[in-house]
Amino acid sequence: MDAYVLFSGGKDSSLSAIILKKLGYTPKLITINFDIIPSYKLAEETAKILGFDHKVIKLDDKIIKKAVDMIIEKKYPSPAIQYVHKTVLEILADEFEILADGTRRDDKVPKLSYSEVQSLEMRKNIQYLTPLMGFGYKTLRQLTAEFFELEEIKSGTKLSSDYEAEIRHLLKERGEDPSKYFPEHKQTRVLGLKKNI
Amino acid sequence: MDAYVLFSGGKDSSLSAIILKKLGYTPKLITINFDIIPSYKLAEETAKILGFDHKVIKLDDKIIKKAVDMIIEKKYPSPAIQYVHKTVLEILADEFEILADGTRRDDKVPKLSYSEVQSLEMRKNIQYLTPLMGFGYKTLRQLTAEFFELEEIKSGTKLSSDYEAEIRHLLKERGEDPSKYFPEHKQTRVLGLKKNI
Repeated sequence: MDAYVLFSGGKDSSLSAIILKKLGYTPKLITINFDIIPSYKLAEETAKILGFDHKVIKLDDKIIKKAVDMIIEKKYPSPAIQYVHKTVLEILADEFEILADGTRRDDKVPKLSYSEVQSLEMRKNIQYLTPLMGFGYKTLRQLTAEFFELEEIKSGTKLSSDYEAEIRHLLKERGEDPSKYFPEHKQTRVLGLKKNI
Repeated sequence: MDAYVLFSGGKDSSLSAIILKKLGYTPKLITINFDIIPSYKLAEETAKILGFDHKVIKLDDKIIKKAVDMIIEKKYPSPAIQYVHKTVLEILADEFEILADGTRRDDKVPKLSYSEVQSLEMRKNIQYLTPLMGFGYKTLRQLTAEFFELEEIKSGTKLSSDYEAEIRHLLKERGEDPSKYFPEHKQTRVLGLKKNI
């Protein structure tokens, strides 16, 4: 069975896809892009390392532009990131019956509440899988270190394939300093596999 | 790394242990017994089918007797089941660094809230893993049907190795009809494996 996994190229969505494969699914990786910048390149590279099918799905740039409006208006990014992720899931749920992502137990945003998950699954008649939801940060740090060769990158210094990359670009275009909204955090990039998956 | 999995012998704790194995852990199955009846026998059989180490840990029967008091007093079993599970986790967390169970996303009870999970992990300096937390009932029904030969049993008609078996016995001893508190529900027993794990 195909499981469509929202894929940023980071260690979490990579591990999520691996768990699904181990459970017998065929992971199909999907990276969302709003045609602002080709931020999906990193995800393409990581997908090759993992050996899973990957495609980029382009969605209407109205979504990401609305998110940028929200960030500037509210002066912090969480509601905007949440809005983008929920909108993306709503759209993909019309196309794919089994939809997954790398949401972790200890994540705050983007994350659907329990009733939002129920609502998505029932309205769209899909299964929404979040294989990392039962694991805390500490556990996931250990697991990803066991599965992947990792490289730490500062956020914003290299392209990453999550929503933030395109949002940062649009913020700059509008004369805003992205670092005002996204405090520097470390992102981790998957360089290789340490075990057979 | 050893991961100690609370194990009832049912399909959920079995699948939980299998996911941990696939992630590189060595699952060590633990069945709790309060020395009321040998309800751990089913779990022993299932552990053999899975090929994982298994031990029975006997805990003070005060815990299960208090649970029975609670059920009779409150006239419904949820708070009592929750009390037993939380107490068991607290005790095991003093002994095992990586503790897991078969809690599912759509379960109501027994289930720790997010802050209870955080509290348990931080106070006890452990990792508490719930590998099924990212999957809904429908998904788990499919997955367990793919992994296991299953037999449906009516609750209470055969021994099962969850807390309910000993609680039912104690309720009967106290002149109470267990079916008053535990409406009939189907339980599923693992008879064999359909794939290599």
